Amino acid sequence: MAKDVEVGGEFQAKDYHDPPPAPLVDAQELTQWSFYRAIIAEFIATLLFLYITVLTVIGYKSQFDPDKGGQDCDGVGILGIAWAFGGMIFILVYCTAGISGGHINPAVTFGLFLARKVSLVRAILYMAAQCLGAICGCGLVKAFQKSYYNKYGGGANRLADGYSTGTGLAAEIIGTFVLAYTVLSATDPKRNARDSHVPVLAPLPIGFAVFMVHLATIPITGTGINPARSFGAAVMFNQDKPWDDHYILRAGAAKALGSFRSSSAM
Amino acid sequence: MAKDVEVGGEFQAKDYHDPPPAPLVDAQELTQWSFYRAIIAEFIATLLFLYITVLTVIGYKSQFDPDKGGQDCDGVGILGIAWAFGGMIFILVYCTAGISGGHINPAVTFGLFLARKVSLVRAILYMAAQCLGAICGCGLVKAFQKSYYNKYGGGANRLADGYSTGTGLAAEIIGTFVLAYTVLSATDPKRNARDSHVPVLAPLPIGFAVFMVHLATIPITGTGINPARSFGAAVMFNQDKPWDDHYILRAGAAKALGSFRSSSAM
Amino acid sequence: MAKDVEVGGEFQAKDYHDPPPAPLVDAQELTQWSFYRAIIAEFIATLLFLYITVLTVIGYKSQFDPDKGGQDCDGVGILGIAWAFGGMIFILVYCTAGISGGHINPAVTFGLFLARKVSLVRAILYMAAQCLGAICGCGLVKAFQKSYYNKYGGGANRLADGYSTGTGLAAEIIGTFVLAYTVLSATDPKRNARDSHVPVLAPLPIGFAVFMVHLATIPITGTGINPARSFGAAVMFNQDKPWDDHYILRAGAAKALGSFRSSSAM
Amino acid sequence: MAKDVEVGGEFQAKDYHDPPPAPLVDAQELTQWSFYRAIIAEFIATLLFLYITVLTVIGYKSQFDPDKGGQDCDGVGILGIAWAFGGMIFILVYCTAGISGGHINPAVTFGLFLARKVSLVRAILYMAAQCLGAICGCGLVKAFQKSYYNKYGGGANRLADGYSTGTGLAAEIIGTFVLAYTVLSATDPKRNARDSHVPVLAPLPIGFAVFMVHLATIPITGTGINPARSFGAAVMFNQDKPWDDHYILRAGAAKALGSFRSSSAM
Repeated sequence: MAKDVEVGGEFQAKDYHDPPPAPLVDAQELTQWSFYRAIIAEFIATLLFLYITVLTVIGYKSQFDPDKGGQDCDGVGILGIAWAFGGMIFILVYCTAGISGGHINPAVTFGLFLARKVSLVRAILYMAAQCLGAICGCGLVKAFQKSYYNKYGGGANRLADGYSTGTGLAAEIIGTFVLAYTVLSATDPKRNARDSHVPVLAPLPIGFAVFMVHLATIPITGTGINPARSFGAAVMFNQDKPWDDHYILRAGAAKALGSFRSSSAM
Repeated sequence: MAKDVEVGGEFQAKDYHDPPPAPLVDAQELTQWSFYRAIIAEFIATLLFLYITVLTVIGYKSQFDPDKGGQDCDGVGILGIAWAFGGMIFILVYCTAGISGGHINPAVTFGLFLARKVSLVRAILYMAAQCLGAICGCGLVKAFQKSYYNKYGGGANRLADGYSTGTGLAAEIIGTFVLAYTVLSATDPKRNARDSHVPVLAPLPIGFAVFMVHLATIPITGTGINPARSFGAAVMFNQDKPWDDHYILRAGAAKALGSFRSSSAM
Repeated sequence: MAKDVEVGGEFQAKDYHDPPPAPLVDAQELTQWSFYRAIIAEFIATLLFLYITVLTVIGYKSQFDPDKGGQDCDGVGILGIAWAFGGMIFILVYCTAGISGGHINPAVTFGLFLARKVSLVRAILYMAAQCLGAICGCGLVKAFQKSYYNKYGGGANRLADGYSTGTGLAAEIIGTFVLAYTVLSATDPKRNARDSHVPVLAPLPIGFAVFMVHLATIPITGTGINPARSFGAAVMFNQDKPWDDHYILRAGAAKALGSFRSSSAM
Repeated sequence: MAKDVEVGGEFQAKDYHDPPPAPLVDAQELTQWSFYRAIIAEFIATLLFLYITVLTVIGYKSQFDPDKGGQDCDGVGILGIAWAFGGMIFILVYCTAGISGGHINPAVTFGLFLARKVSLVRAILYMAAQCLGAICGCGLVKAFQKSYYNKYGGGANRLADGYSTGTGLAAEIIGTFVLAYTVLSATDPKRNARDSHVPVLAPLPIGFAVFMVHLATIPITGTGINPARSFGAAVMFNQDKPWDDHYILRAGAAKALGSFRSSSAM
C-alpha cells in the first residue's frame, strides 16, 4: 500500500516473461489428453456451480412460501444466495485452476480469448462445455424440485419490476467489468515480479468479486454475469420473459469484455 | 486461469513424486505413538464438530419457538448453521492436518482408503473414532439442552416433507461428490509441481465446500455428507424416521465415493 | 502468539530496510506512465466501490418498502451491507495494490502522506481522483435507481436519531483509527523481517477491518470512515442534513489520522 | 490430509527447535522498550475489541426495540454478532502478533504461561492491560449509547433462562477448549517442520474458532471465552446477575486451561 512497491518505471529491463499470444488453432494441444480433461473439468465445474446455486435459490423461495407454512425468516436470504454464488466460484476455481485454468464462465473464456491467452478452438470448446454443464445442472435441480421449480421462477435471471431495459443492461456491464477486472488482476504475470508482498491467492478475490456483484445486482436482474448460468436457467425454465431479458444480459457482457481488448495492451 | 499454467503434456518427465499406495496393514505404524495420537485427534475433532454444530442447530430452533417467546428473526438462520458446519471443518482440518491428516469425516477416510492413501487398519480405526466422537458430541448437546433436544429433532438428518427418497439420495450423492472433489484437489501432490501460482491453502476451500453443500441441501435432507454426523445424531435422537433416512444418506455417500476409485487413476 | 517471535531488543542491527521518507514533490515520478496509471486506478476503484456499496444499500431499503410489497426479511440486512463494504475493499486493494498501492480512501492516502510514504503531489492527485470516482459511482446508482434513490436517502451518511454530534464524532474517530491501525500494521516493512510466521496477506485483514467497523457503527452514523464515500454520496444526494453531518465525520477522521504522525516514529 | 504428511515417528532426530521454557521472571525483558510496547498493544487491542463488539451487540438490540419503531429484521442478528467477535480477533491477532504475540484474551495468556511460553511477569502485566482495556472499551460504548446501554443489558454475559449453572459452566469449558486448541495448533513450532503443505496463516483459523464458539453458545451464556470481555462488561454494567454468572464463566475457563498443562508435554 505504499509507493515503494513499485520497482522501475517503464519496465525497460523486464523481470517477468509475458507469454506469447495464443494461436487461433493450436494443433499440438488437440493431441493432448490434458486438453480434453480440461474440457471435462469445465463441464463438471459448471454443472456443480449451477446445481448448488439454483438449488439454494429454489430452497430459499420455497421456505418463504406461506402455502407451505414457511416462516418469514427461515430462509438463507439474498445474503445466503450471494454467498452460494461467490463461494462456489472460490472452490471451483481453486479445484480446476490447475486443470482447465478455472474459467467456469463463458465471459471469462471470451475475455481471455480476446486477450489472446487461449486459442480459438479451446475457447469454443470451453464455452460449449460450460453451456452444456449449466443446462445439466439446472436440469438436476428441476428433477429434484419438481413441484417448486416452475412455481419459483426456476432460478432464471429476469429484470425486476420497476427497472428499465437500459438499467439492467448497464448494471450487467459494470458487474461483468468488476469480475473481469479482478480475474485479470489476479492472473497478471506482472504481479509476481513487481508486487511480491501481496501473495497471488487468486481464487479468493475472484470468489469475493462474484459475491459482491450478486449482493448489489440481485435486486435488479438477479445478476447474469455468468452467461452459462443465465443460459442454462433460461433453457430449463423456458418461458418468454427470461429469454427476452437474456439478450439484454448478453449485450451487457459483450460490451464490458470488448473494452478489455484494448486495455490488455496497456 | 490461463493456458500457460500447464507445463508439459503427458508428464513423461514427472517433476513430482507420487507416493506408493498404502498397504492394507502397515505393521510399522502400529508401533508408533503418532498413530494412536492421530486416532485420538480424530475422536476429539469429531466430538467438537458435532458439539458446536448441533448446539447451533438446537439454539437456532429454540429461538424460533413462540412458546418461549422467541421472535421470528432472533436466530442465526440456515445461513448461520451452514457457516457453523463449514467453519468448524475449516478450523478442525487446519488443527489436525499435521496430526491425523484432518479427515474428521468417515466418507473422506473411506475415499482416501479407496485411493490407497491410508492403510485398512488406519481407515477402520479412524472411522470408529469418528463415530464414537460424534456420539459423544451429540450426547453433550443432549445433556446441555435437555428440554429442547428431543423437541427440536435432535439435529438429526431427515428427509423434509415433499421430497422423495430418490431426491434425497441423489442430493446426498452430489453433495458428497462436491466435498470429495475439493478434498482430492486440495491434497493432490501434482498441484504443487504443476500449479505453483495457486497456493495450496487446503483447509479453507474444504471448509467452504462444506458450507456450500449445506446452504443448498439443508432444505432437502439437512445435509448428511458426514456419515459420522448423521450416525451420532441418529444414535442420540433414536427415533424411527432418522434411522430409516440414515440408510438413504449412506447409500448416496457410498455411490459417490465408489466413483473416485477409478477417477483417482486418471 | 508467543514471546519467541520477537528477535532482538532494540533492533540495533536492523535486518530490514526502512525506506527513506518520500519527498514533497518527486519530479521523477511525474514523468512516468505508472504514476498516471496509478491515478486512473484510484479513480476506477473508488467508482466501483461506491457503485457496488450504494447500490446494495438502496436495493436493501427498497426491498423493505411495504409500498412495493416488500417482505420484511427479503433484503440483505445490515450484515449484507457491511459485507459489501468490507468485501469490495478486499478485492479492490488486492487488484490495485501493485498499481497504485490500493488506497481507495482519502483518509488512507492522507495517513500515508503524514507518515511520509507518498509525496505531496501524489497525495493530492490521489485524493482528487478518489472524490471524483466517488461522485461518478454514486451518480451511476442515482441514474439506475431513479425512483428509489432520493426516497431511500441516497446512501448518504447521517447521524441516526438519538445520538449527539459528539457521539458521532467519537465513533468516527475510533472507526478511522481501527482502519488506519490495520493498514499500517499490514504494510509495515518491519513485519517481514521480524515476524515471518504471520504471512503478510494484507488485503484480507484490511477488508475485514472495514467490515467490522461497519457492523458496529452503521446504526450510529452509517459509517463515514471513507471520506470519499461520504463526500460522493453527499454531492449526489445534495440535501442539508448529510452536508451538516459531513463536517462531523471529517473532523473525526482528521483527529484520528493526526495521531499517526507521532506514532509512526515509534 | 494423507498419511504422507507425517515424517519420522518419534522425532528422535528433531528437525525443529523447541524454545526453552520461559523463566518466571525474565530480568532482561524488563529493560526493553519492546516489552512495554507489547503491554500497550494488548491494552489498545482489547479496548478496540470490546468497543466494536459491544457496540454491535447494543446496536443490534436497539434496532429490535418496538418502542423505537424497530422492525424485526433490521438488525445484524446473532450471526452478525458472532462475525463481529470472530472478525475482530482475526484482525487484532494479525496486527499485534508481531508486537505482543496477539493474546488479547487473558485465558490465552494464562494458557501460554502454563505451557511456559511467557514469563510470569509478562503474563500478569498482559492480563492487567487486557482487563483495563476491556473496561475502557465498554466505557466508551456506555458513553456513546447512554440511553440504550443499561436498557439492553450492557453486552454483559449472563446465563439465559432455562439453563442450569452446570450447563453454562460446561459450555464455557468446551468453548475455551476449542479456542485454546486452535491457538496452540496454529502456533506450534512443530507445524513448520512437519507439515509444510498447510501454511501457518494463524490469525484466520483463530478468528474462525471465536466465530464458531459464539454461534453455538451465544444462546446459552452469551459466550464468555474471553475473561477480559466478561469482566469489562460486568464492571461497566454492574448489576448482580452478570457478576454471579461471571464466576461460573471463570471456573469453566480455568478447568479447560488446566488440562493444557499436561497436554502441552504430549
